[in-house]
Amino acid sequence: MTFTRISHFSLFFSSFFFISSTLSSHLYPTSATTPEKDGKTRSLYSEILRDEAVARLNNLGKVSDADGYLERTFMSPASVRAGFLIREWMEDAGLRTWVDSMGNLHGRVEGMNASAQALLIGSHLVMPFDTVVDAGIFDGSLGIISAISAVKVLKSIGKLGELKRPVEASYLISDVIAFSDEEGVRFQSTFLGSAAVAGILPVTALKISDKSGVTVQDALKGNSIEITEDSLLGLKYDPASIWGYFELHIEQGPVLEWVGFPLAVVKGIAGQTRMKVTVRGSQGHAGTVPMSMRRDPMAAAAELIVLLESLCKHPRDFLSSGGNCNEQTLESLSTSLVCTVGEISTWPSASNVIPGQARNSSVTFTVDLRAIDDVGREAVVYELSNQMYKICDRRSVSCIIERKHDANAVICDQELSSRLKSAAYSAVNKMVGQIHEEVPVLMSGAGHDAMAISHLTKVGMLFVRCRGGISHSPEEHVLEDDVWAAGLAVLAFLESHM
Amino acid sequence: MTFTRISHFSLFFSSFFFISSTLSSHLYPTSATTPEKDGKTRSLYSEILRDEAVARLNNLGKVSDADGYLERTFMSPASVRAGFLIREWMEDAGLRTWVDSMGNLHGRVEGMNASAQALLIGSHLVMPFDTVVDAGIFDGSLGIISAISAVKVLKSIGKLGELKRPVEASYLISDVIAFSDEEGVRFQSTFLGSAAVAGILPVTALKISDKSGVTVQDALKGNSIEITEDSLLGLKYDPASIWGYFELHIEQGPVLEWVGFPLAVVKGIAGQTRMKVTVRGSQGHAGTVPMSMRRDPMAAAAELIVLLESLCKHPRDFLSSGGNCNEQTLESLSTSLVCTVGEISTWPSASNVIPGQARNSSVTFTVDLRAIDDVGREAVVYELSNQMYKICDRRSVSCIIERKHDANAVICDQELSSRLKSAAYSAVNKMVGQIHEEVPVLMSGAGHDAMAISHLTKVGMLFVRCRGGISHSPEEHVLEDDVWAAGLAVLAFLESHM
Repeated sequence: MTFTRISHFSLFFSSFFFISSTLSSHLYPTSATTPEKDGKTRSLYSEILRDEAVARLNNLGKVSDADGYLERTFMSPASVRAGFLIREWMEDAGLRTWVDSMGNLHGRVEGMNASAQALLIGSHLVMPFDTVVDAGIFDGSLGIISAISAVKVLKSIGKLGELKRPVEASYLISDVIAFSDEEGVRFQSTFLGSAAVAGILPVTALKISDKSGVTVQDALKGNSIEITEDSLLGLKYDPASIWGYFELHIEQGPVLEWVGFPLAVVKGIAGQTRMKVTVRGSQGHAGTVPMSMRRDPMAAAAELIVLLESLCKHPRDFLSSGGNCNEQTLESLSTSLVCTVGEISTWPSASNVIPGQARNSSVTFTVDLRAIDDVGREAVVYELSNQMYKICDRRSVSCIIERKHDANAVICDQELSSRLKSAAYSAVNKMVGQIHEEVPVLMSGAGHDAMAISHLTKVGMLFVRCRGGISHSPEEHVLEDDVWAAGLAVLAFLESHM
Repeated sequence: MTFTRISHFSLFFSSFFFISSTLSSHLYPTSATTPEKDGKTRSLYSEILRDEAVARLNNLGKVSDADGYLERTFMSPASVRAGFLIREWMEDAGLRTWVDSMGNLHGRVEGMNASAQALLIGSHLVMPFDTVVDAGIFDGSLGIISAISAVKVLKSIGKLGELKRPVEASYLISDVIAFSDEEGVRFQSTFLGSAAVAGILPVTALKISDKSGVTVQDALKGNSIEITEDSLLGLKYDPASIWGYFELHIEQGPVLEWVGFPLAVVKGIAGQTRMKVTVRGSQGHAGTVPMSMRRDPMAAAAELIVLLESLCKHPRDFLSSGGNCNEQTLESLSTSLVCTVGEISTWPSASNVIPGQARNSSVTFTVDLRAIDDVGREAVVYELSNQMYKICDRRSVSCIIERKHDANAVICDQELSSRLKSAAYSAVNKMVGQIHEEVPVLMSGAGHDAMAISHLTKVGMLFVRCRGGISHSPEEHVLEDDVWAAGLAVLAFLESHM
């Protein structure tokens, strides 16, 4: 780890100054050193926060509808079994539990004042609705296990009653679902369980069906949970009864591993624009049309993708002269803008048409654009579209840019984030002794339930380092000591409510 | 038609100077003017060269293995029926016919001297081996129908015996076949029927099988044609018995339509290099990996495709400083080089992996590169590969460039081309009165049987204008008057052998 490497991405942080590289995973006290025997480390509660938590994550990861890999879909037998396990662990930690009519599992402890505003700690089921993923065992689950473990420590040391406010840990039943509109091609994403709790889930969501035609309502009914439009509306929490919402999640990115720190505070969740770009031209026979007579949609698409990358790497070079962005927006874009072309396809690709010979050919690609500054993101979309049309005009190809999805950024609450930063610092400090580093502050490029809950109350998030930034894959991995650090941070955060 | 438009592609011609635009399709004598009633136009033989030829092309186009579109595969019932029809028309024109043991249909007239070197006129069956194409009716067929019609005119005016040498019109049984080598991914193309006649078809070709496992040998046997390795070797013509080979074909490109001329002389068939480029990187989650930490194979591939286009549009900008190319090669590349990316695909594209989120992702695309100068083509491949590797190094992505296929250019014979040019000029001149234009001289970017036959004897080709440059499609179209012009040109060419 050197400063040279850090300079590549340091702009990605809003307020993170890296001081030394003394903190890396191998510097943790390890099991081999049996820290519990040392009085100094007894407060680390490694048996509950590391060993048991890791064992529970592994056990939960084995609860699958499939053989050999992790698959749990909405209200499937495995998701119900997973719910039973978590409910048992919640009760073991001293939480009172119930399942609401959307299938969300809640566990609550009232603390000193049952009528005080509650702290919500949320996390989600592993699986997107109606999508089979060969998933990892930490995505979603780490958040709920850390919360349960931290509460269990409080119970074990007799401090559960000292909480100044109720704490409610919720295992939200589903991740992202997709609505398709009349055209059948536009999608609007939402978070099923958290949107219901936040009161922003449209009642039409109950009628969304999976590939085999089973609706959300059917799937719940199959598990003896009756939900009606009325009871859905009743799921919404009273904002006045909530102090705030906290979510702990794996980073799903490479930055924490790169800087060698186990935890980060999340400053906000990026807003997102998804677009589909279709370039239509006239490629003709690969051999018989001179270069100067071509209107080649593939070459045009390539130029557009190169432009997209340049713009997203160096937004100042494209936007500085415009009047849409002030200095703060430009700075924010420089540190947070990311763009991805994930899919590209050419037409024709049918087996009975020789590629590159079609008179009318087209290339279609997706653009995923994220930034923490919504005004800046709009300015980027505007400038990008303008420049794309110019390139297509110059090349005499047609260009259709469709906006498929937009979501505004969510900014995390300052007070909540400040408490979380202290809690993360305290956790790491306890584990490795005096540290000089600040806790990194990251933007979340991925979506989280906190986006939905932000409609209800202030939100804050912690990220936990994951290996190689990989998620949504069986390769997803979190170090045992990082699971421990996560539990310690949640514990410290809970203690800030005493 | 103005000079401005012509300037866009004039470099594509080696020796074509466009003088005026007085010659366009509507200036032909039309059927309505019944030119036969006019003594001046009696020599145009429109009944045979236009009306009957067009009717035969249409009839032949209806002989299909499929309903509603044209499909004829190697030795299929429709291809055999098509062969019967053509054989009948050959005999009607005074040709003696036979089918060789590769299924090629030949028709021959001995002329004044049966032992003189023969003129071969070749054309091919519509269908590539083992490929279903919703094909057009002129590709391949126009060449044989023009030849038969021209011979029939000679017979009808009693001049068939005046030919100084034998003329043999061959309907070669198949177009391109593909060999797959041990790796199963490298392909080497050849022309089945013409390669057999030229003596360059490897005996292993007999064992090539289609999707249902039927080999070339099986398919022939199914039509009572026995071919063995020995009889294949016996198919090769004695070069000493051949004067030269002529092939008439639709242009399959837009240039003749653009310049408003019905016929062109082909200076040569471009050499070709096909490559597969695989770029491997690490894209990561679309939202969570900062731009500066990405090794994005999609953005890299886009830059490579933009480079490819620039190099092929402006080869002098890339090659002038190098020592590999002399001025003649550079000039040839500037007028003939064409490059196409016909296919592109990304990995992952599986439904259970969210695009743009994979740790290891790759983009693969094809490159098709053609030029009339083989040394120049090699220099372009070398320079392109070097620059591609540099771009990939700079981006820290890996790049694998595989050469899948190479074919050298074939240069048409000067004497033969000169005769064909005169014949084309004479044909058009007869049809529209005195013309001032030169006959265009084009490069063929598409492959033709002449490539295979060039191993046996000198070759020459004529191109016929086709609508929009479209081929391999039911939209393929040749004006009736251009069919007529083609027949007149073949007739004039045959008359040059009297």
